[in-house]
Amino acid sequence: MKASQSFLATLKEAPSDAEVVSHKLMVRAGLIRKLNAGIYNYLPLGLKVIRKVESIIRDEMNRAGAIELLMPMIQPAELWQETGRWEKMGPELLRIKDRHDRDFLIQPTSEEVVTDLARNEIKSYKQLPVNFYQIQTKFRDERRPRFGIMRGREFSMKDAYSFDRDTEGLKKSYQIMFDAYTRIFTRMGLRFRAVTADNGAIGGSGSQEFHVIADIGEDAIVYCPNSDYAANLEAAESLSLLAVRAPATQDMTRIATPDQTHCADVAKFLGLPLEQTVKSLLFAAEQAQGEVALFMLLIRGDHELNEIKASKIPGMAQSRFATETEIKLACNSLAGYLGPVGVAPTVTIVADHTVANMADFVCGANEAGYHLTGVNWGRDLPEPMAMDLRNAVVGDPSPDGKGAVDICRGIEVGHVFQLGTRYSEAMGCTYLDQQGKAQPMVMGCYGIGVTRLLGAAIEQGNDERGIIWPISMAPFEVVICPMGYDKSEAVRSAVDQLHSELVAAGIDVVLDDRGERPGVMFADWELIGVPFRVVIGDRGLADSQAEFKGRTDAESQNIPLSEIKEKVIAAVQTAKQLIS
Amino acid sequence: MKASQSFLATLKEAPSDAEVVSHKLMVRAGLIRKLNAGIYNYLPLGLKVIRKVESIIRDEMNRAGAIELLMPMIQPAELWQETGRWEKMGPELLRIKDRHDRDFLIQPTSEEVVTDLARNEIKSYKQLPVNFYQIQTKFRDERRPRFGIMRGREFSMKDAYSFDRDTEGLKKSYQIMFDAYTRIFTRMGLRFRAVTADNGAIGGSGSQEFHVIADIGEDAIVYCPNSDYAANLEAAESLSLLAVRAPATQDMTRIATPDQTHCADVAKFLGLPLEQTVKSLLFAAEQAQGEVALFMLLIRGDHELNEIKASKIPGMAQSRFATETEIKLACNSLAGYLGPVGVAPTVTIVADHTVANMADFVCGANEAGYHLTGVNWGRDLPEPMAMDLRNAVVGDPSPDGKGAVDICRGIEVGHVFQLGTRYSEAMGCTYLDQQGKAQPMVMGCYGIGVTRLLGAAIEQGNDERGIIWPISMAPFEVVICPMGYDKSEAVRSAVDQLHSELVAAGIDVVLDDRGERPGVMFADWELIGVPFRVVIGDRGLADSQAEFKGRTDAESQNIPLSEIKEKVIAAVQTAKQLIS
Repeated sequence: MKASQSFLATLKEAPSDAEVVSHKLMVRAGLIRKLNAGIYNYLPLGLKVIRKVESIIRDEMNRAGAIELLMPMIQPAELWQETGRWEKMGPELLRIKDRHDRDFLIQPTSEEVVTDLARNEIKSYKQLPVNFYQIQTKFRDERRPRFGIMRGREFSMKDAYSFDRDTEGLKKSYQIMFDAYTRIFTRMGLRFRAVTADNGAIGGSGSQEFHVIADIGEDAIVYCPNSDYAANLEAAESLSLLAVRAPATQDMTRIATPDQTHCADVAKFLGLPLEQTVKSLLFAAEQAQGEVALFMLLIRGDHELNEIKASKIPGMAQSRFATETEIKLACNSLAGYLGPVGVAPTVTIVADHTVANMADFVCGANEAGYHLTGVNWGRDLPEPMAMDLRNAVVGDPSPDGKGAVDICRGIEVGHVFQLGTRYSEAMGCTYLDQQGKAQPMVMGCYGIGVTRLLGAAIEQGNDERGIIWPISMAPFEVVICPMGYDKSEAVRSAVDQLHSELVAAGIDVVLDDRGERPGVMFADWELIGVPFRVVIGDRGLADSQAEFKGRTDAESQNIPLSEIKEKVIAAVQTAKQLIS
Repeated sequence: MKASQSFLATLKEAPSDAEVVSHKLMVRAGLIRKLNAGIYNYLPLGLKVIRKVESIIRDEMNRAGAIELLMPMIQPAELWQETGRWEKMGPELLRIKDRHDRDFLIQPTSEEVVTDLARNEIKSYKQLPVNFYQIQTKFRDERRPRFGIMRGREFSMKDAYSFDRDTEGLKKSYQIMFDAYTRIFTRMGLRFRAVTADNGAIGGSGSQEFHVIADIGEDAIVYCPNSDYAANLEAAESLSLLAVRAPATQDMTRIATPDQTHCADVAKFLGLPLEQTVKSLLFAAEQAQGEVALFMLLIRGDHELNEIKASKIPGMAQSRFATETEIKLACNSLAGYLGPVGVAPTVTIVADHTVANMADFVCGANEAGYHLTGVNWGRDLPEPMAMDLRNAVVGDPSPDGKGAVDICRGIEVGHVFQLGTRYSEAMGCTYLDQQGKAQPMVMGCYGIGVTRLLGAAIEQGNDERGIIWPISMAPFEVVICPMGYDKSEAVRSAVDQLHSELVAAGIDVVLDDRGERPGVMFADWELIGVPFRVVIGDRGLADSQAEFKGRTDAESQNIPLSEIKEKVIAAVQTAKQLIS
């Protein structure tokens, strides 16, 4: 392809609203242009990258036996009312009315429509399993769109939905998708991790996220450098840091700690390690019958409560911090001085595993300006209910026993999810089993953020000059920069020939025929991030030489003109093999 | 591909709301399923046909130098307010509000967004001409969606927009698109015509539609069988059927025609040919200053008024039929007995070219129950203003002088349009010319109804057994039907080998591995419309024979097994060459 036919639109300056490097570079390299908050035009180069991403996804989805179809963008409310999502979802679901004042929505995903299709088309166990997917525009009316296309409102997503006879079948379908996703992100040349995720409110029995590792990622990932273990911080299991509880050595003592309401301050004030203190958090949770129950959660002073884990304490699904009145009722005290000793018997006390193994610990005295030291379970207060309540921290033992965990940040680009029968039961999506009995289909759903992947790849691959694309995502694999295309017949003839030969060899090559100065050409293509560059000019031609340079090479190499074609082909093939 | 991986979903019965054969067959063949009025799921086979159509379009658009990009589905109202279309368009434009109560719309086309892009990105004459296109989902909230996907609400469209320095450039860009469209529809194997269209209210200087010829088409096309002449009935020029006016031979006579208010009845009552009568139609039209002017339009009794042509009479852009009061004022009469003799001098009389050359004609006498015969221009009433006012009819002389026209019906699948500066002037989309002066870009727009093409192709290609696809649009080129795939090792081995060989040869082949009975297999594939079928069974294998049959062949042929691969490849290639 010729550059003059690619509508290059590079910019010197990034837009002022661009917070992250991928957003800045996507605009500067001419991949996208903002139309509205979270809504972008994809310029020709951006669309070309999307097509490459789609092609890898489609290839691996088909290879995994999934079947592509296309569901509508605009979907009727009725189906979403069947599952309750019409009411349950927040304003990120864009609800609209047609000319006849009937309710519709713009799809954020398509569980309802695909389940409707399955209940209409699939009658018998013989038709199962089946896995439908589409690559299609989605819309989520984010309250605060940001990071360019990474958290946009209109975006492209691959969404797949598997239908199985039973849970065993679902597990197989899920594993097939897990493996396909692993191949997809590998082929894209990304550093990623499959991460155990929380199942969320949707229910279902298992879920993993695929994260591209990047500092600006919105999720924290707990992983073990020595093994495959990785989990979203939300879901990462935290073992007790104390294998056994030490025997009590101190008496429980009430100590004045005036104005010291945080563990760190109390520890400092008392000259004790922070790891000796316990934080007491009082929550109120609405129960099924409508009354409110109180829970005191205990976390070691240097730890943080994990709200997802807390929400799994029986009775705490819907909770909030206790009010002053509730605190008074439970502890007869003020926030900042709470503790588990002597609270009202109606309060359920739950201790994090580590806290449950602590001895001689410090906690609030339930009296303003006082803490207790030397507190011991079983002696000063009853044995607690122990659960995993805290966020993992760097250095925690890995749950798989393979060493200590580290924490990094990730951008979620994929999610595989065992839905189970939540949708099929709500919508009556059943099949007849071998005994002729109607059974709900067992579903899984599997998403990949197509457009988000562009941003994630750029967060991983960039330098001060621009984007560094993996070969499989680059808008072009190779650029040929002629020095004096319009001036030198010899240059023109040499580059035109090389261009034709590389096209014939199946290389995605662009010839910069714009007639720009070398500095402008080089800067543009480094900004755009093309992996390999060939420069041909009269000076080199005099010695039958061309210049070859990889995007991240410090120096260019002189290559005999007669070998340049093979050099390029070999470089592209090697780069592809590295990620295949 | 294996049929078991294609999710075949054929049906015996068509849905009750399907009015036309293409809609019936698309549902029965398992290409589409209705989700809501005018909103369809595309099942795997339907999507496969769409991809083939898109691929041909993309190929020819790229070859024509157009550049693909992607604009958002959801567009902000502001841009559409700049051009006035936000207010001007009817309820077919689906207007929506986001969570912040801001106005958006779902794109029916993208003139505003592409013009916004051009004004931001294109600064200099050096960047022109350029032609941007996208293939993207569109939404038009049709009041009465029908004919399946042919007049749906959500549909896929290729829309292109050219930007030129001047009108001369636009004409070149327009011709390039016209030629590309001709290649696109030719490669799709469709019978089509490029048809002169009315420019409509959008303005601009030239416009042609591409129609697929089909009886259920919503448009009437006037064409000359001996030449390239073709025009939408709306726009087809109608010459006078009388080369010169004959001299008057009768006196004007008032004749009682009690209760005869239609020309056909009057002619019959008087025993005169219908061609001797003139129909008088009184219209009221609002003028710029706000007052209402009256127009009497005269059409020969056997002709029909063309409203588009009438709207081009100076002062008649906004018109309606005159009220009883206005008729009384102008003619002192009742509807049914109107005529041009003796009307109030404030009424503008316009005669169709044919009427202007009539002599001794019959018209209403402006008196209830009476007509005039023997009326002659210049003698009984002033010479009229003469214009082309009527619809063309079969047998009219072709405007290009190449014989008589015929009329057929067509489905509009493409439209090329010289927009001029309507959008660029409204939106300030200018470039700097060689003198450094800002000039509005001169635009063209070019649409193809991607999903509609499926319906149009099926309207042209079907029989009582199902769809007959052109080879380039067929979901598969060839189907292999094994007799006893699960029972005979010899059959399985022979078809598996043929399948692999054809895949390797680049043939789009499907192997029916479902284990269905031959009757079911054959009926399914004829319904789906696969162009070629190979049957392999134990009986044939005993003689080393396979059966080969084209979709429209009366009989199958026995082909030696050793030659079947070459036979299929040759048949596919021949079919492709016929439409290349």
